[in-house]
Amino acid sequence: MTDPSNPQAALEQLHEQLGDCVETSFEQREDHSYDGLKISCLPDAVIRVKEDSQVGMALKIANEYSIPVTTRGAGSSLTGGATPIQGGWVLDLSGLNNLTVDQKNQVARCGPGVVIADLQAEAAKDGLFYPPDPSSKKFCTIGGNIACNAGGLRCVKYGVTRDYVLALEGYLANGEKVRWGRATRKFATGYNLRDLWVGSEGTLGVVTQATLRLIDLPMFTRTFLGVFESDEVALSSPNELRKLGLRPSILEYLDQWTIDCLQKYVGTEVFPGVDPKPMLLIELDGSEREVEEHSIDLTKWMKSRALAFRSASTADEAEKIWDVRRQGSSSMKKLASTKLNEDVVVPLDKQVELVQCVDGLREKFGIKIGVFGHCGDGNLHVNLMYDEENAEETTRAVAALKELMSRVIELGGAISGEHGVGLAKTPFVREQFNQAEWSAMLAVKQALDPNNILNPGKIFDVFNPWEQKKIPVILSWEHENEEPKP
Amino acid sequence: MTDPSNPQAALEQLHEQLGDCVETSFEQREDHSYDGLKISCLPDAVIRVKEDSQVGMALKIANEYSIPVTTRGAGSSLTGGATPIQGGWVLDLSGLNNLTVDQKNQVARCGPGVVIADLQAEAAKDGLFYPPDPSSKKFCTIGGNIACNAGGLRCVKYGVTRDYVLALEGYLANGEKVRWGRATRKFATGYNLRDLWVGSEGTLGVVTQATLRLIDLPMFTRTFLGVFESDEVALSSPNELRKLGLRPSILEYLDQWTIDCLQKYVGTEVFPGVDPKPMLLIELDGSEREVEEHSIDLTKWMKSRALAFRSASTADEAEKIWDVRRQGSSSMKKLASTKLNEDVVVPLDKQVELVQCVDGLREKFGIKIGVFGHCGDGNLHVNLMYDEENAEETTRAVAALKELMSRVIELGGAISGEHGVGLAKTPFVREQFNQAEWSAMLAVKQALDPNNILNPGKIFDVFNPWEQKKIPVILSWEHENEEPKP
Repeated sequence: MTDPSNPQAALEQLHEQLGDCVETSFEQREDHSYDGLKISCLPDAVIRVKEDSQVGMALKIANEYSIPVTTRGAGSSLTGGATPIQGGWVLDLSGLNNLTVDQKNQVARCGPGVVIADLQAEAAKDGLFYPPDPSSKKFCTIGGNIACNAGGLRCVKYGVTRDYVLALEGYLANGEKVRWGRATRKFATGYNLRDLWVGSEGTLGVVTQATLRLIDLPMFTRTFLGVFESDEVALSSPNELRKLGLRPSILEYLDQWTIDCLQKYVGTEVFPGVDPKPMLLIELDGSEREVEEHSIDLTKWMKSRALAFRSASTADEAEKIWDVRRQGSSSMKKLASTKLNEDVVVPLDKQVELVQCVDGLREKFGIKIGVFGHCGDGNLHVNLMYDEENAEETTRAVAALKELMSRVIELGGAISGEHGVGLAKTPFVREQFNQAEWSAMLAVKQALDPNNILNPGKIFDVFNPWEQKKIPVILSWEHENEEPKP
Repeated sequence: MTDPSNPQAALEQLHEQLGDCVETSFEQREDHSYDGLKISCLPDAVIRVKEDSQVGMALKIANEYSIPVTTRGAGSSLTGGATPIQGGWVLDLSGLNNLTVDQKNQVARCGPGVVIADLQAEAAKDGLFYPPDPSSKKFCTIGGNIACNAGGLRCVKYGVTRDYVLALEGYLANGEKVRWGRATRKFATGYNLRDLWVGSEGTLGVVTQATLRLIDLPMFTRTFLGVFESDEVALSSPNELRKLGLRPSILEYLDQWTIDCLQKYVGTEVFPGVDPKPMLLIELDGSEREVEEHSIDLTKWMKSRALAFRSASTADEAEKIWDVRRQGSSSMKKLASTKLNEDVVVPLDKQVELVQCVDGLREKFGIKIGVFGHCGDGNLHVNLMYDEENAEETTRAVAALKELMSRVIELGGAISGEHGVGLAKTPFVREQFNQAEWSAMLAVKQALDPNNILNPGKIFDVFNPWEQKKIPVILSWEHENEEPKP
């Protein structure tokens, strides 16, 4: 019999079986003690996985000794999804980055450590395209994207990560190998544990190989930027454009507050002579003919609805338009030490009410809040800015956040559209579900991970990130410009 | 304390709470004792549900007394998914057929009893489209489509049922109300029990309301029929058409054997002067301009690859092309008393090997087998014909079926692409999964239905349909022509 309360014995077995993949130096443990949320919890060991089977071996031991296991790729989670909040072992899968594109079956097979931008580049060589593109795509990995069912800019036309996952291989909490789904579009045989794993944030299993559907690479794009009199007009775009037969590949909204902030920051007006007003950034894609034809219709719509607009068909011109989106975010960060980026989602026709709710929160709590994001999906990012050193301001920000989340749920939406719950949203997730739903989710967790070793502390246990001191680290990608780029 | 072995007490409570929704006449019970598989098992009672909450009330009692509950819509399942194989109660949801189309959010909300064709007709009034279209769409209901993740003709371009389910409301086995997902395209909050329910064949919960994503209704179509020298050429079409930038809305294959059978049946050749050879039925859809432009490219491809072809742009002309598909199926039914329609699916590039496998089975077992179906998805329907009164022939057919299923799994496919396992595929489903996968599925079942009351006997328990006598009933839709029609 093994002693479940003997982590030292577990670690010895791990060393024995996995050899120098297991790292226990303080430096390695510290390096793997935090993610994009920047809250640090030291793990006992880091396992740098070199082959699939090592995941099974590590999990078998961890399950026997009830050791918490936190799976990690790039560690770019903004919600703390890869923070080893209960210590234990960190399973670093960034080394499992094999990648092959199967052109005949229009699929990619990749390890969880494959970076999204690399996957897109490899697919493009065969004229193929993997559409989900979170703004972190240059460094985030497919494993994390599957864990939180990542979205991004182009979901309005192409859907989210889940829509591209055909099959998953990996390990159950007990270390046994499983495969869910097949490299086929249709599958109606047994329970769909593939889609249960997608979005389960590493709490139900560990993915070691994903088979992803690819589509044809759109060859041409045209980018538009327009400014609108009101939120009502800007946020009517998803429905109005649809009625015109237009299916933009990107449909991004920036609120008046964000534009005001960015104009003050850069010192010039985006549209000279136009006061800060809501804007839309729209991309059309497809064949040259399609883009040309749809551009004519979109131009007509812009002329009838926008106060001013411009468009770009070359990469250089498009860059200038994207600068507006990038600077919007950068300028906000100058306003406060902490920016809480909440990826809430509401039905398309409730977006105006969401923006009105935010107006009320700014006034009631005196907090700076900028709203921008994917209005084609109802997935607006609400960014609350406050100084975490200021206890009183923090209290106000948290109160505003709570009201925001309640309102989102009231409007028939969800508190997370693409980042997942992780640690950051645990104070609000309970409100999203009734008791029966909550119990059913816990029963599924218990069924697939009876010893609660997989990413424990996430989703279900309340953790208030604002009560924790963030570590003053600058992540490798924070040196570069990490803002979205098409 | 209730007595779980006292079905009479349970039935009394049911009568008390649900009044005249509960029917126990022999006639009603017999009417609900079978589905499209035509194997009859008498239930103790039929519950004709009039409102959502009655489902919860019935399940609460059933769960307390461990009464088997089989949920049913139209009862058109070909796999026995709605057969009350263990008796108990049949929950007839065909009366829950409320339907509203929300044009602003591009969704439909419907009860499980809504017939697919009615949903499509209602959506079309607002220029919207619900794409999954099983060939039974004139009578099958959305509840059953969700239960087996139904596909159909247009999945090659538009995806399957799962791709259109945004949210589900319903009841857990214990009678508690739950809601999974929201009327939003993105959702990354908690476990995805929505997609776990989809395809779980009524064994994990009962759906009482579905929110479905709708897309723009394609306004124009053009239909092509071509005959090809070999299976290799015909089955290269998915990849070749993709490379030409063509995305057919329908891409159906009929094998040489099926064509031969139909030509003998109708007495004329589909393409005069051309011997029986594999054929493709292809539909393009979209705007008038798109269809015109893509027709030019498809015509070029047909000229270079087909022995002969024709196309239709009017409904009447298309009817004649569809007659070929319909007669293929009708003529097969004349050949034997029993036709086993197996909806297997393999990766796109394994379809030729699947067809070769069927050639081998015909020879080895002396069984008549016709193959036709959705080659754009790798979802070919393999139809085995035999006389169920002939024990020796039945044995050969079953042996051929077993070999087929093993080969499908070997090729990386699945034994069911769109019909589900039900009863009919239980002899083969175990081979699809390893022990860990099988145990994980059973653990999920145990977690969500601990008393095993929901559709017991399906998916997991072996049932050999060929050992059962089928009842000589003609289903209401069998009087009409039930073959696929676009």
